[in-house]
Amino acid sequence: MKLPNIFEADTPPENHAAGETIFREGDKGDCMYVVKEGEVELQVHGKVVEVVGVDGFFGEMALIEDGPRTATAVANTNAVLVPINARRFEFMVHEVPDFALHVMKGLSSRLRQIDNAS
Amino acid sequence: MKLPNIFEADTPPENHAAGETIFREGDKGDCMYVVKEGEVELQVHGKVVEVVGVDGFFGEMALIEDGPRTATAVANTNAVLVPINARRFEFMVHEVPDFALHVMKGLSSRLRQIDNAS
Repeated sequence: MKLPNIFEADTPPENHAAGETIFREGDKGDCMYVVKEGEVELQVHGKVVEVVGVDGFFGEMALIEDGPRTATAVANTNAVLVPINARRFEFMVHEVPDFALHVMKGLSSRLRQIDNAS
Repeated sequence: MKLPNIFEADTPPENHAAGETIFREGDKGDCMYVVKEGEVELQVHGKVVEVVGVDGFFGEMALIEDGPRTATAVANTNAVLVPINARRFEFMVHEVPDFALHVMKGLSSRLRQIDNAS
C-alpha cells in the first residue's frame, strides 16, 4: 500500500542497513513504518509474506489492535523508514480519513491475496 | 467485530431466512452488512472462515477495494441485516473515525488469526 507524502511530514526518519531486523514476531509494537527509501521484507513463521517498497507501509497491525508484532520485518536493502507512533496514528485516523482508507485497503488487499491463494 | 448501534441508524434492515445465501464469492459487492439479529457464516472456497453474530459486520472488503466478494455469506439462522452502501461507508469513514478503527480492527484481527494458524 502506498501513502501520499503528506502523511509522513514532521517525523524524523530511521536508517536501517541491509539485512537488519527492524522488529520480530511477538515483539511489543509501538509504531508503524512508512518506507521512504529501500525495501523491507515481512516474514511470518520464517516465510516471506510481503515485500514493502517505497511509499508502502507496514507494522500497522500492532497499532490497530495494540497487540504484539505478527511478522518479522527485515531490511532487504539499506532503508529509510518514517515511524508513526500510536498517538500520531490515532491523530491521522481522526484527521485524515484518506489515511484510514489507505490502511484499510492495505489490510483488505492482504486478506484478498490470502483468500485467492488458499 | 462489533459496531456500536449509532452506526446503524437510518438504513432499513433486510430480512434473510436461515440457509439463505446473502452473496457469493465473485459477486460484485456494493454494500457491507451489520448483523442486527441472527448469525451469518462466511465461506471461502467452501470452507467456513468466520461466523458473524449480532453487532458484527461483514462484506466490507468489496467496499474498501471496490472489488468482487471474496467470500460467500450464508444466514445460519433467520437474520436481520443492516446494509451500508458505498456512499454511507465513505461518509462514516470521514465523519466517524471510530468506525474506521472498528473496520481496521476487524480486518487486522482476521489477518492475525490467519498468521497464527499458518
